[in-house]
Amino acid sequence: MAFDFTISPHVEEQRRRIADFVANEVVPVEQQVFREGFTDELRLELQSRAKAAGVFAPQAPASLGGGGFRFDEAAVLLEEAGYSLLGPVALNCAAPDEGNIHLLHMTGTPEQQARYLEPLVSGEVRSCFAMTEPPPGAGSDPSALRTTAHRVDGGWVLNGEKWLITGAQGAAFSIVMARNEGDDVPEGATMFLTPTDNPGFVLGEHLNTIDGTFLGGHLRISLRDCFVPDADVLGEPGSGFAAAQVRLAPARLTHCMRWLGAARRAHDIAVERSVERELFGSRLSDLGMAQSLIAENEIDLAAARAILWQTSWVLAEGSRTSEESSRAKVFVSEAACRVVDRAVQLAGGMGTSEELVLGRIYRDIRSFRIYDGATEVHKMSIAKRAARRAAARIAAREKRA
Amino acid sequence: MAFDFTISPHVEEQRRRIADFVANEVVPVEQQVFREGFTDELRLELQSRAKAAGVFAPQAPASLGGGGFRFDEAAVLLEEAGYSLLGPVALNCAAPDEGNIHLLHMTGTPEQQARYLEPLVSGEVRSCFAMTEPPPGAGSDPSALRTTAHRVDGGWVLNGEKWLITGAQGAAFSIVMARNEGDDVPEGATMFLTPTDNPGFVLGEHLNTIDGTFLGGHLRISLRDCFVPDADVLGEPGSGFAAAQVRLAPARLTHCMRWLGAARRAHDIAVERSVERELFGSRLSDLGMAQSLIAENEIDLAAARAILWQTSWVLAEGSRTSEESSRAKVFVSEAACRVVDRAVQLAGGMGTSEELVLGRIYRDIRSFRIYDGATEVHKMSIAKRAARRAAARIAAREKRA
Amino acid sequence: MAFDFTISPHVEEQRRRIADFVANEVVPVEQQVFREGFTDELRLELQSRAKAAGVFAPQAPASLGGGGFRFDEAAVLLEEAGYSLLGPVALNCAAPDEGNIHLLHMTGTPEQQARYLEPLVSGEVRSCFAMTEPPPGAGSDPSALRTTAHRVDGGWVLNGEKWLITGAQGAAFSIVMARNEGDDVPEGATMFLTPTDNPGFVLGEHLNTIDGTFLGGHLRISLRDCFVPDADVLGEPGSGFAAAQVRLAPARLTHCMRWLGAARRAHDIAVERSVERELFGSRLSDLGMAQSLIAENEIDLAAARAILWQTSWVLAEGSRTSEESSRAKVFVSEAACRVVDRAVQLAGGMGTSEELVLGRIYRDIRSFRIYDGATEVHKMSIAKRAARRAAARIAAREKRA
Amino acid sequence: MAFDFTISPHVEEQRRRIADFVANEVVPVEQQVFREGFTDELRLELQSRAKAAGVFAPQAPASLGGGGFRFDEAAVLLEEAGYSLLGPVALNCAAPDEGNIHLLHMTGTPEQQARYLEPLVSGEVRSCFAMTEPPPGAGSDPSALRTTAHRVDGGWVLNGEKWLITGAQGAAFSIVMARNEGDDVPEGATMFLTPTDNPGFVLGEHLNTIDGTFLGGHLRISLRDCFVPDADVLGEPGSGFAAAQVRLAPARLTHCMRWLGAARRAHDIAVERSVERELFGSRLSDLGMAQSLIAENEIDLAAARAILWQTSWVLAEGSRTSEESSRAKVFVSEAACRVVDRAVQLAGGMGTSEELVLGRIYRDIRSFRIYDGATEVHKMSIAKRAARRAAARIAAREKRA
Repeated sequence: MAFDFTISPHVEEQRRRIADFVANEVVPVEQQVFREGFTDELRLELQSRAKAAGVFAPQAPASLGGGGFRFDEAAVLLEEAGYSLLGPVALNCAAPDEGNIHLLHMTGTPEQQARYLEPLVSGEVRSCFAMTEPPPGAGSDPSALRTTAHRVDGGWVLNGEKWLITGAQGAAFSIVMARNEGDDVPEGATMFLTPTDNPGFVLGEHLNTIDGTFLGGHLRISLRDCFVPDADVLGEPGSGFAAAQVRLAPARLTHCMRWLGAARRAHDIAVERSVERELFGSRLSDLGMAQSLIAENEIDLAAARAILWQTSWVLAEGSRTSEESSRAKVFVSEAACRVVDRAVQLAGGMGTSEELVLGRIYRDIRSFRIYDGATEVHKMSIAKRAARRAAARIAAREKRA
Repeated sequence: MAFDFTISPHVEEQRRRIADFVANEVVPVEQQVFREGFTDELRLELQSRAKAAGVFAPQAPASLGGGGFRFDEAAVLLEEAGYSLLGPVALNCAAPDEGNIHLLHMTGTPEQQARYLEPLVSGEVRSCFAMTEPPPGAGSDPSALRTTAHRVDGGWVLNGEKWLITGAQGAAFSIVMARNEGDDVPEGATMFLTPTDNPGFVLGEHLNTIDGTFLGGHLRISLRDCFVPDADVLGEPGSGFAAAQVRLAPARLTHCMRWLGAARRAHDIAVERSVERELFGSRLSDLGMAQSLIAENEIDLAAARAILWQTSWVLAEGSRTSEESSRAKVFVSEAACRVVDRAVQLAGGMGTSEELVLGRIYRDIRSFRIYDGATEVHKMSIAKRAARRAAARIAAREKRA
Repeated sequence: MAFDFTISPHVEEQRRRIADFVANEVVPVEQQVFREGFTDELRLELQSRAKAAGVFAPQAPASLGGGGFRFDEAAVLLEEAGYSLLGPVALNCAAPDEGNIHLLHMTGTPEQQARYLEPLVSGEVRSCFAMTEPPPGAGSDPSALRTTAHRVDGGWVLNGEKWLITGAQGAAFSIVMARNEGDDVPEGATMFLTPTDNPGFVLGEHLNTIDGTFLGGHLRISLRDCFVPDADVLGEPGSGFAAAQVRLAPARLTHCMRWLGAARRAHDIAVERSVERELFGSRLSDLGMAQSLIAENEIDLAAARAILWQTSWVLAEGSRTSEESSRAKVFVSEAACRVVDRAVQLAGGMGTSEELVLGRIYRDIRSFRIYDGATEVHKMSIAKRAARRAAARIAAREKRA
Repeated sequence: MAFDFTISPHVEEQRRRIADFVANEVVPVEQQVFREGFTDELRLELQSRAKAAGVFAPQAPASLGGGGFRFDEAAVLLEEAGYSLLGPVALNCAAPDEGNIHLLHMTGTPEQQARYLEPLVSGEVRSCFAMTEPPPGAGSDPSALRTTAHRVDGGWVLNGEKWLITGAQGAAFSIVMARNEGDDVPEGATMFLTPTDNPGFVLGEHLNTIDGTFLGGHLRISLRDCFVPDADVLGEPGSGFAAAQVRLAPARLTHCMRWLGAARRAHDIAVERSVERELFGSRLSDLGMAQSLIAENEIDLAAARAILWQTSWVLAEGSRTSEESSRAKVFVSEAACRVVDRAVQLAGGMGTSEELVLGRIYRDIRSFRIYDGATEVHKMSIAKRAARRAAARIAAREKRA
């Protein structure tokens, strides 16, 4: 019970193993993916090698074949996985599967775990998480959820539109969030499991987004009288918003972990290039303008890692961390985007190209400041808590006086 | 001879004409281009409509069929053209052709103008400008130019590698910058004109860059014993660096004009969306967090326009403007990128998508902070001039004392 | 009727005259003022020399002995006056007198002008402007005004508390803003003129603020049954908020002009020092980290001047400029504070000291981002207008469709 | 050996004790100090109460009457002390004494510790640290040291000029840094102890700096044939630069700790005010513009604390931390200044005043980005290390290939 910032030896060992795996097995296939797109065939190949290398699914329960690492240990390991944009998929710790694994592990019935969780942890299948809706539905404001769930005999019928559903193309099943409707059902929202071959689960078009590497894209999905049997209700009917929190707090931190790795990669590439590049008779890395970009990146990475480790530890210890994770998510997402932007700038013309990987990281990371709570939404929530604390201090002083 | 910030009525009239043309003829084809790519067929169709609408080539000499507008008037008009990413091509005022038109007009012989300039102004052909080289050649530091030009009988032979040559695919000719080599030639660099079907002008692969809309891509080019006859030397041998300045100072300002339009477009889209979007029970545009993004954009756009108009006027008046154009380029490029980034953030999930155009603007604008002088290179040059002025002030004081 | 960014020769001549006056007569007394405080004795001495040098009151009406320059010309001249923190007082173009001169000139009766305006323009007396109130009264939100004005026989009686009233100590008279109360009076607020020796006008304590050079400090004032005769009502009863706008729009721009000069001074000092200072074997000004600070200052100063000149011209032409002046105020105040902060940083240990003037400029300029509309208040108003325009565009499109 | 971010119970208990002491004993005398200045009389009174409260000198060795807390524990405690600008002096953990205590404890002889360290730890006397010199001497670049030390019989004679020596007025002794000169002495610099009543130690004028609360001011000092006997050489002759590092790495972190407390205070004041203030019909704290300032402060404070705790722990564990402490110093100093600036802005007119303490914190904190290594100097050093690591990675890859 005192400060200790030591990475445990077994975590450090696993970190090196992941670093080696990413360097030797994942980085070499990046250019092919950037040119031709990511495929499930390549995913399965990479995951098979990851299993062989003993680095598969570090965050997943050991009982299911995962690494069984604590959440604060995962902060070290998932950063390493994120060092390649393909690393998290290779290690089966990418969004949205990683968050779905956590959620199913925490809330699924034994039958649901056998049917959905086990093949997901093993990489046999992929999944998606259908919560976000096109306006005026639920994006940053979950209470605006418009997809409905009506009670019918033996189950529920879902209707509504989803949007920006990452990984939907090729997913075997989806978790779907819907609002309970009708007299005989609990108020609130419910989460449902459904195979994607359910005839009421209709894949729409791919959204043409800034990023380019997400396996399975970002799709529209229509729920058209989509029947879900009672056995596939995840948790209790009406518990949907609470379950979303179970998923979201850790999920936004694992995003931070992975993107911190990607930002470090961008920085490393740019600094290496600045060491090799001559400009105006100096090494680029010796010019003060370049040094400023390099140093600001080093500082941002260090501060981001410090707040992320601390927050992950708090969560691993079992505390509620809404506020801490909001702060960490804003800081890490903004810092990581700054780092990548500076890396592009430092690398110059080459920095704008995907040959150097930088251009692709630049594209792929942008949405991180928006999803899982946009910066501005977290800031509103952080400010409200700070104002409540200030009001309490004032009240306490007035009481004493 | 006193301040006047009035847009002349004939310029304002043309501005409206361009705005209408972009809205009615260009914007409707954007989604098709984002999905399928830009083609010369579409370019010719758009340019033909632009001619019919009387908005073609506002900056080109009237004697050649252009609009003949002054450079400070072009600041108003090219912003309007840039309101669509396709607008500058539709109006034949896009890079690199627009800069090549200017350069050929200023420095070409009558024969060169007949052969190269006239079909370029009319849109019959496209061109490219081959200066940038892969490391360790000339990027931000022009003095590192490694492509060589050797004198031979009746002309010159060029050898070297070029890189990131925008618009090269499909261009009819290129201007090529090379360093004079040999005893009998003037020191320095020379600009050469060459048709792209010259057997020594070899197109290499497309670089996979962050942006996605540039017609003709960004290519590697190899010059392999590329023969250029004397008649195709642009300006005097050895005058290449001076000629580059003739091209670059206005070219970096026309980039500012066009990208200011694109940034305004991004802002307009995002504000319109924020007006239509409900969040937490308010219009998004009424939430202070959103208002902050909106207002910062309005301020950045206004300040960018002010410094750009002023600098364009100085250049139109015929003064040297290296320092002013460096300041304007840094300010406008940084401000425009901030505006687009805030617009993406304001539009949320939708902002990351190309359906809303924002995602594409976000990708395409990034390199603007790097090409035609990276921010850091301009800052070095600006600081040196400021230090020279300070040293002169000190010397003057010491002389007086 | 076309762009012209030329400073008229007679303005340029006056600008040089002011620059010489500030350098030769004002700068030499700065250290004394920093050590001992500003006094009216020194003010009168400086103003007498300014009259002799032909540089007094450039913005005041020529009919009253001022320079009679247009508002956009004043933008050039007041920047020069602001080059010393004492310059605006020496030239009688400092706040709050400069704004009061404008307001009295626009709205005062002949009698009021003879009694209050004439001695104010000549520098015989100083004045103050009592609008701001301590919470919960009127600060950023004028509608919260709590000082009351009741109609009595032959005049009005004022009661309330004012706060942060700049220049109150030693002022001969004050303009006071109060809310009309009672059945028989027009709704709204009214402006009143009152000598400060009115027994109901009670000076309170000096507020101990960040700045240190304002003549007359920043005081609390109590209005205690303060009687003002009808002849000293400024404008019509009930016209107070409208009159405040008459004062505020130009006043916030003249603040921008003066502080732009102070920011340029800070920058000049720091760059000169960086030219003279050796560090790590180089001139400080040759180190890239320093060049970055220098160049960012140059760019901020140029952009601030561009938007300020443009806005001042619009106002000089007689247009309403609430939105333009809000944008200019935010940009110039934020940019000027950035410039001064970078100058302090560039000058290092010396930069934190008042010997180099930088420390004092750093202290004095801070409040500029708060008074005459805090940055955030202007941003709210700018965003609302942008949202209204966006809503109008949407409505127009829907009407067409 | 695994992450643990728990504050030990005995540290938490002491933190609360300090918080109570600062709130009840220190905060109540702030306004008096702001008005009348800080005196040694008040210091002794406060220190006596701090001893009585059991909160004195938390970082000093327990053997000498200090708290004996580890360095990472001090990070928690000194933040609490810094919650008032007077707190660190009251607890005898302020600069420069705190750093001198550490240095004397690490390098002093038993005699030196008896004579200089013991009365310093007890608060009987104050001290100063004379290293910085006016240009062209040693400021950011220690190698430029110009004060000389010549060997004479029985000791050394020092000559030179020092500048910005904090706390010199009223100090009982000084540590002086000088460059060895002469044939018979080791190369390099040496640290000397000297009572300030040494006739060769001549106090010069107070520098008029931005800050206003430092006890003993910031003075010029002339060393004029200042004799120091051998017994007062601190460490070995020639070991001065090494000894400076012993002092500087922890000293810059204790600055971070104290200023983090001051920044938190500024934030708390501003948020409390925003909760009490009505504006435009809302609580100020409910307006999005204000929420943005509040949340950014919360995030900056949390990230600063995270990186500071981590770095302090590394140092407490005995590792060299030049790079970590450079990163932490830049991040914390820049973040703390941002926090204070936002707090001033949030509090509006009141924020610019010292009544609210904010104005004084704003003034006092500015130099923190300059002393103990300016931001830019640390960034240069951070960038060089990053470039060296990148070069090593490249070399390792080339070796493998």
